[in-house]
Amino acid sequence: MSQRLDVTFILTLAPGESAEEKALGIALEQTVELGADVVSDDIRERMVGHIDALEALDGNRYRAVISYSPATIGNELTQCLNLLFGNISLKQGMRIVDIRWPQALLDSFGGPRHGIAGLREICGVAQGPLLCSALKPMGMSADQLAERAYQFALGGVHIIKDDHGVADQPDAPFDERLARCQAAIARANAETGGDSLYFPNVTAGFRELPRRLEAAKRAGCRGVLINPWVTGLDAMRWARDEFGLALMAHPALTGAYFGAEHGIAPELLLGDLFRVAGADASIYPNTGGRFGFTVETCEAINHHLRRELGGLLPAFPTPGGGMDVKRAPEWIRRYGPDTIVLIGGSLYAQGDLAAASRALKEALAIA
Amino acid sequence: MSQRLDVTFILTLAPGESAEEKALGIALEQTVELGADVVSDDIRERMVGHIDALEALDGNRYRAVISYSPATIGNELTQCLNLLFGNISLKQGMRIVDIRWPQALLDSFGGPRHGIAGLREICGVAQGPLLCSALKPMGMSADQLAERAYQFALGGVHIIKDDHGVADQPDAPFDERLARCQAAIARANAETGGDSLYFPNVTAGFRELPRRLEAAKRAGCRGVLINPWVTGLDAMRWARDEFGLALMAHPALTGAYFGAEHGIAPELLLGDLFRVAGADASIYPNTGGRFGFTVETCEAINHHLRRELGGLLPAFPTPGGGMDVKRAPEWIRRYGPDTIVLIGGSLYAQGDLAAASRALKEALAIA
Repeated sequence: MSQRLDVTFILTLAPGESAEEKALGIALEQTVELGADVVSDDIRERMVGHIDALEALDGNRYRAVISYSPATIGNELTQCLNLLFGNISLKQGMRIVDIRWPQALLDSFGGPRHGIAGLREICGVAQGPLLCSALKPMGMSADQLAERAYQFALGGVHIIKDDHGVADQPDAPFDERLARCQAAIARANAETGGDSLYFPNVTAGFRELPRRLEAAKRAGCRGVLINPWVTGLDAMRWARDEFGLALMAHPALTGAYFGAEHGIAPELLLGDLFRVAGADASIYPNTGGRFGFTVETCEAINHHLRRELGGLLPAFPTPGGGMDVKRAPEWIRRYGPDTIVLIGGSLYAQGDLAAASRALKEALAIA
Repeated sequence: MSQRLDVTFILTLAPGESAEEKALGIALEQTVELGADVVSDDIRERMVGHIDALEALDGNRYRAVISYSPATIGNELTQCLNLLFGNISLKQGMRIVDIRWPQALLDSFGGPRHGIAGLREICGVAQGPLLCSALKPMGMSADQLAERAYQFALGGVHIIKDDHGVADQPDAPFDERLARCQAAIARANAETGGDSLYFPNVTAGFRELPRRLEAAKRAGCRGVLINPWVTGLDAMRWARDEFGLALMAHPALTGAYFGAEHGIAPELLLGDLFRVAGADASIYPNTGGRFGFTVETCEAINHHLRRELGGLLPAFPTPGGGMDVKRAPEWIRRYGPDTIVLIGGSLYAQGDLAAASRALKEALAIA
């Protein structure tokens, strides 16, 4: 494994642009932020990104590999994000399609605390896919959402999470919702002998996030939902270290990076970055639902969450966003059993949540 | 002022899409995340976004105004961000071009603590533009950066900030750099009788950010640089409340939202959002530099930072990113005196930083 951070870009040239200049522009912009003529030879060699490869593809596209010294990062996830795409986010035609991580950075960032095996243990499900659903819609009272949680738990849904937009609105304030939903699921578990879990959405501001995590832990929750691009990615990593709860990450706000010619490939952002920052499960919009990912993108995300990566634990792919009950078995066949199936609307549409959940589990052949 | 959050979108329709469905899709996706048929009349009326206007523009483009109830937000900046663009970031052809803020949200978010007048007072500059430069490149030692800070201060640069990629790398660790640069500027101020200020870059992870802010305050700094999209936007607001330092916000990572057909207009993200979250100054890439903003976009950002907005203090536009000393006077004539001129590379290229800074101040007719 390289000691450097190797970043592969697809460059799309505008008329008049040269590939060499565009690649060098990235290497300078993301490090010294000065023209090559203003930096010393020493700084240029040590700090400016190295252009390790540059090859023409079809049309006006080039593939460039730019590697960065660990000295440009200093072990901080925040500076790593900035180095990857901070200033060049403001440019055009630069898409990150591969990252090769130096072991030291992976060791420093740490990855999932529980991972696939750990989350299976928490859920008491040794094999096969996990089933997840979401408590919604916003506007319901805490009691109403808790009743839905109860029904999902009766139906044997493994992880019952808040919808990611259910935060601390007046209809169902966080503390009240936490208490009600956690109690409802405990009641259902007592009736069924099951182990359904409630993952409250702790996404909140800088002062409030720790308090919600603390409250979730005190209430007996084993995991939480978080929108890391809203809280700042490092907040998730911090939550991992500080609270030990399982972390299910939601992709809110990240879609802007998924441009065809400019941005960060979804499998790197929702795969690598979320995983190195501690996500035990990463939600993404499944193909064929309400969003536009291709099946190849979904499989790439799955791969990046599960692949060998410097000894980091693998994380659960969690396709959702309009997953249809009818097609869920097909997706599991395709994606494999180490997958969390996130289905909300398609269960709600059936009315009886417990029955719908049970039927889905049967269709998925989940014990 | 409306009680609701009014968001204007330009919708770009893909073949086969209808404007009505696309607008309704946003209104549902960003709130209840369920099909219209699965939510009760009560929830639909109270929580789903209202489509207040929908009109055809040229070609396949439509203008839609969608308003959201405060009940969908609950006063949290994190949920506000999610409501604005969380899930729909993952879609296509939805660009936010205007936001009308309800007074209650503005009161809750609070805006700049110092604003233009306060930052002028901190800098001791009652009128005319402020001059800012950046300490770089990364790879220099703390002493070397401090020497540059000293030269800039001798030249009368008002705000001398860390480059936004200078974080806590081994060549110039934060604490050492803070001490050295702050001392260097104090020494220059003692020699010149000036009031130059050092704004260290405090951008860091969740655990470390408070410590850096505390260290900056203890060292006597009056302000700091922060990359709010890296730390999480609410971290900046929290820093405002907790430390009282002036906040200069950097746009790292935000460029991905500035797509022509999908995203958030720069004047809303770097203008409104940064301002409501507490930025006293907002850095943006000036037109004609290394980035691609038009002069109209720059002027829109200036306007959004300075305009009347529910009693919030105005914030300083801070054009940078390849500003040329030669053209700086022209930009100030165009943008007006309530502007911070951020110039780095164009001063470094001249070698003698003190002399170059003095010459620039003369050209700008700054006392």
